Amino acid sequence: MLKLYDYWRSSAAYRVRIGLNLKRVAYESVAINIAPGKDEQLNEVFRTKNPQMRVPALETEHGVLTQSLAILDWLEEAFPAPSFYPRDAWARAQARAFALTIAADIHPLNNLAPLAWLREKHGADEAAIGAWYRHWIALGFEALEARLRTMPETPFTFGDAPGIADICLVPQCANARRFQFDFAPFPRLAAIDARARAHPAFAAAAPENQKDAVRG
Amino acid sequence: MLKLYDYWRSSAAYRVRIGLNLKRVAYESVAINIAPGKDEQLNEVFRTKNPQMRVPALETEHGVLTQSLAILDWLEEAFPAPSFYPRDAWARAQARAFALTIAADIHPLNNLAPLAWLREKHGADEAAIGAWYRHWIALGFEALEARLRTMPETPFTFGDAPGIADICLVPQCANARRFQFDFAPFPRLAAIDARARAHPAFAAAAPENQKDAVRG
Repeated sequence: MLKLYDYWRSSAAYRVRIGLNLKRVAYESVAINIAPGKDEQLNEVFRTKNPQMRVPALETEHGVLTQSLAILDWLEEAFPAPSFYPRDAWARAQARAFALTIAADIHPLNNLAPLAWLREKHGADEAAIGAWYRHWIALGFEALEARLRTMPETPFTFGDAPGIADICLVPQCANARRFQFDFAPFPRLAAIDARARAHPAFAAAAPENQKDAVRG
Repeated sequence: MLKLYDYWRSSAAYRVRIGLNLKRVAYESVAINIAPGKDEQLNEVFRTKNPQMRVPALETEHGVLTQSLAILDWLEEAFPAPSFYPRDAWARAQARAFALTIAADIHPLNNLAPLAWLREKHGADEAAIGAWYRHWIALGFEALEARLRTMPETPFTFGDAPGIADICLVPQCANARRFQFDFAPFPRLAAIDARARAHPAFAAAAPENQKDAVRG
């Protein structure tokens, strides 16, 4: 069985959980507590699995694969149906660009490591961290909302079924809510997020529904 | 003809230039000067092309596509040979993960926008900027060098021909050199970078060989 090195609050791991659920692929979740002070990702055992010491990582019969988007593309090839991608090549490219605006522009700046650097090296307090965090979400969401305004309104980002764009959008919106982000300027993104969260594959992948979730 | 909204020093645009050259696809380069103080990406005309106001963006008969990795994947589908990816599905996934470690982990933190934020909001001087910049490269390169040590030595990252991993590695190494990064702990990455830079498709894409390059 596939083994997912996972953390309930990691939004990159959340993407992979959604993908596995959409493909109806059974997997074992191995919780790696990456919370500051716990730092289980630094453990020698996990380090041999993933020298980058990050989650998610997927262990298959071939070995360990890192990077949520690479994992999702491997799942797409190994389990083609239902597809994460639109059938038309140009729409597929646009869906990838949408997903990458989140995965390569917004999310990396809001990861634990840069936030820790801002606190430690620049004395950023929680107000400064929040401002940084929300700034990158707003910048990316402005581009994505503008993109959506040029497209027909469909239940999910690129059509009637959820795909790679929704897989990246929902975890990013969860992060945004944690940081009191104002969704008012982004009605199309908010509507898709709400609809996708109600989908069983997304609901089962939600942070609060993971066995390592900490309620507080 | 394809039109690439380009900037000589953008390492994401550099990736796309390499990809276009490897596929031997003719394109017109439209220079958008994103240097602080020039900010041509904010121009109304470009803004209608790409509401995210970033380079690269590729204009095709279908419209405008953003995000370097989405552009490269579209090129891969539109012009299949030579492929950017290994033939084996697991190697292909590993190549994607390698590329994403650069494109989604290292590079986003070193973009102009977060550097500007550090200067403006946290009073970071050039020493602090350099420390931030090199820190994220070192963190990512440690994972990539460790990954390479588990693989056979081949001319390029994933075999005898250049591919997606090399397309991302070479521009990242160019950025690293600009910031006086120490390559000593990364002999495998440095060797692949040097070999790839000598390849005509990579050489023609190099920042210093672009018509908008500023010599200094």
